[in-house]
Amino acid sequence: MNDHPFHPVDLILKKRSGLEHTPEELRFLANGAAKQSIPPEQLSAWLMAAFQHGLTLNEVHALTTAMRYSGEVFDHTGLCRPTVDKHSTGGVGDSTSFLLAPLAASAGLAVPMISGRALGHTGGTLDKLETIPGYNTQLSLAEARRVLDLCGATMIGQTKELVPADHVLYDLRDRTGSVESPWLISASIMSKKLAEGLDGLVLDIKTGSGAFLTDPAASRLLASIMVDIGERSGTRTVALLTSMDQPLGRFAGNWLEIWEAVDLLANRWHPMDEDLRQLSLILAGWMIYLGGKASTPAEGRDIAETNLIDGKALDIFLRMVEAQGGDTRVFDNPEKFHRPKFRREFCASHSGYLARMDCTKIGWAVQRLGAGRERAGEPVNPHAGLEMRAKLGTHVRAGQPLFTLFADDERLFAEPERLLTEAVEIADEPAPVPPLISQIITAENKDQYLEPAARPLG
Amino acid sequence: MNDHPFHPVDLILKKRSGLEHTPEELRFLANGAAKQSIPPEQLSAWLMAAFQHGLTLNEVHALTTAMRYSGEVFDHTGLCRPTVDKHSTGGVGDSTSFLLAPLAASAGLAVPMISGRALGHTGGTLDKLETIPGYNTQLSLAEARRVLDLCGATMIGQTKELVPADHVLYDLRDRTGSVESPWLISASIMSKKLAEGLDGLVLDIKTGSGAFLTDPAASRLLASIMVDIGERSGTRTVALLTSMDQPLGRFAGNWLEIWEAVDLLANRWHPMDEDLRQLSLILAGWMIYLGGKASTPAEGRDIAETNLIDGKALDIFLRMVEAQGGDTRVFDNPEKFHRPKFRREFCASHSGYLARMDCTKIGWAVQRLGAGRERAGEPVNPHAGLEMRAKLGTHVRAGQPLFTLFADDERLFAEPERLLTEAVEIADEPAPVPPLISQIITAENKDQYLEPAARPLG
Repeated sequence: MNDHPFHPVDLILKKRSGLEHTPEELRFLANGAAKQSIPPEQLSAWLMAAFQHGLTLNEVHALTTAMRYSGEVFDHTGLCRPTVDKHSTGGVGDSTSFLLAPLAASAGLAVPMISGRALGHTGGTLDKLETIPGYNTQLSLAEARRVLDLCGATMIGQTKELVPADHVLYDLRDRTGSVESPWLISASIMSKKLAEGLDGLVLDIKTGSGAFLTDPAASRLLASIMVDIGERSGTRTVALLTSMDQPLGRFAGNWLEIWEAVDLLANRWHPMDEDLRQLSLILAGWMIYLGGKASTPAEGRDIAETNLIDGKALDIFLRMVEAQGGDTRVFDNPEKFHRPKFRREFCASHSGYLARMDCTKIGWAVQRLGAGRERAGEPVNPHAGLEMRAKLGTHVRAGQPLFTLFADDERLFAEPERLLTEAVEIADEPAPVPPLISQIITAENKDQYLEPAARPLG
Repeated sequence: MNDHPFHPVDLILKKRSGLEHTPEELRFLANGAAKQSIPPEQLSAWLMAAFQHGLTLNEVHALTTAMRYSGEVFDHTGLCRPTVDKHSTGGVGDSTSFLLAPLAASAGLAVPMISGRALGHTGGTLDKLETIPGYNTQLSLAEARRVLDLCGATMIGQTKELVPADHVLYDLRDRTGSVESPWLISASIMSKKLAEGLDGLVLDIKTGSGAFLTDPAASRLLASIMVDIGERSGTRTVALLTSMDQPLGRFAGNWLEIWEAVDLLANRWHPMDEDLRQLSLILAGWMIYLGGKASTPAEGRDIAETNLIDGKALDIFLRMVEAQGGDTRVFDNPEKFHRPKFRREFCASHSGYLARMDCTKIGWAVQRLGAGRERAGEPVNPHAGLEMRAKLGTHVRAGQPLFTLFADDERLFAEPERLLTEAVEIADEPAPVPPLISQIITAENKDQYLEPAARPLG
């Protein structure tokens, strides 16, 4: 594979001087990372130089392609359905994935969804799925393909064989201070998503107080780069900038979010779930549209809603869970499997309008209740989390519950309570509530956000 | 020692954002490098961030101090003489060290000179010294101190115990593309020189076609930073910008340069040696002045010339060689020890004035004749090298020898001959010869060259 024996130090010098790499050079770097033939100190020096100078769109595309093909890729031979997926930049209480995969599958699409674990203040899809007794997230690509054939959707974890270059580079970036680069983030996310061999991809770029990127301009730039890479790679791609100014839906926590999604799939609707339900239908509508099963995103949304209401999506979800070894009896009798030992109300300190929430702090509160981990590899508590009792913009009275907290150890309430006290702002006048979806970036409008100058994020 | 348990990634993030480090942070980095408690990928990411953003003068000083004290330092207790040294940025045919050490010692100073090996197109003092049979460059600091007490001068190699932070960082910079930073170069050079515990330091900053830094502004900046660090550290420091537009003196090669220096110390003067003799006396004059043994550099130069002419310096050199195990009979009967198997004249292709030389190419010619090495650790040929038969500015006739080449293998002439053909420019009109010393940067005038903005070298 290594036809071009470059010297790594020459590539560092080139990027250090702000020059543009050839696709061959980036392939050498990505394969060198994957095979660990380029030592970490050289990769990290290149990453820092790329962080500082940024990459051109041609470079991001070439790097993404090189990383995508640095290991195995999904093989869809004989699948006979368009494949779609969505990726979120990470949120609090975001259980859309559990609705989106069955909703898109119910419209005749295949959804080979590869997800990650809790990171920082945000939850992890795999951690949530693993609260279903027996559910196996660690399938091989061949096993995942069988689930996909059977159910139209599979939800699994990253395998070692898939995009090994990203395993190495992501870990290095984390340890060497080159995470927050729109160019490196884009290559990391898109290499993994494109390795799924997608016809369509919906990106959910979180904005607001709970998002990793709080600057809207940075979010637009990141979204536009990823749409550009996707489209260049032959995957129809859209990015929706969506509000993470408060937790999405009613629950945040591992099992709590699974249960919430199943409630929605079973049409047991709760007013606190309205934003989660709306966002899921809109994102599913885009997936169905990009996958070619609807002529507009709005028509896609209507198809999704019909399949939600008539139970098709729930049926697919349950079949997928069973195909991956999960025990669906947990949904009939959740109390038997998941009963947090302690619960506590967090109440309004005074009366007024719920004006703002620091959703990052709320996310940390959820993690510190036990839902997250301090270090990679640690177990997470399945029951821990919180329930939203009021949403932004509503009037609350002093002493009214704003959140219900769940934990298996009473001592774990103190820090989350402190975080929530800091996170919630009650004002005398109502503040405008940020729209659920603030912007949609497509192949048609992406160019206006792609600045010519490559810049690291602040 | 590690009182401040910083997280390396936080320091990378700080420098990545162009912020100024505290001395404690830089001490943590230098000690982490020395003890190898910070992994190379984090050090190299920090180095690249420091390369890109530069360091403030406060940072360079703090980093230099931290590196200087990362291991053992020279202990001059009871020495009763001021200590001085010089450092050169690397040249071709530069045998000044062999004159400077005994000349400064002859004036009542102590010279604990630590040198390096051939690097790129430039020669290495240790490689040259080791052509003296038996000469041991690998003394411990205690052994070196005994030689210093006995002779007033010692010339040794870097020990593992001295400035271990630089061992690690220099090796990393070389492999991760962060060499050419005036800030990192300054910290590297000055930490090693200051660990010698010097009262005075003379820096020979090479300029022109054979220098590592060809841009005069970059040379002035580097010189000024180093003078600033030295003075802040209590070491009187001067930097002379000197011409490396042609090889210095008559010979370039390992034994050839030792022999040339001994010729000069023995007052066997040859016209081709004039520049080497002049530069050595001027540099020695500055060492004697900074060491407090003369009231002006000019007076120092006169003292040096007197001690050269009356044989004092030669006597010190021979005693130092013997004290380090060298067999001084080689100087009485060099033909017995050093006789290159082949010699070849390189002649002028046409008549005219010797207008310009690409001295870097001449340096490579010397190395490729066998004087240098391809990889660290390889042996060098003691006999190989070249003799200058004409200097810049002189008129030469077609067919007149410009260089005599020496090698132990006839096949080694081809590449040097090609390099010399490219290196030499004979013109119809004489071109101005760059002055031997173009600038002197001292504590008094350094500030005008210290730009406020930290910048990597081009």
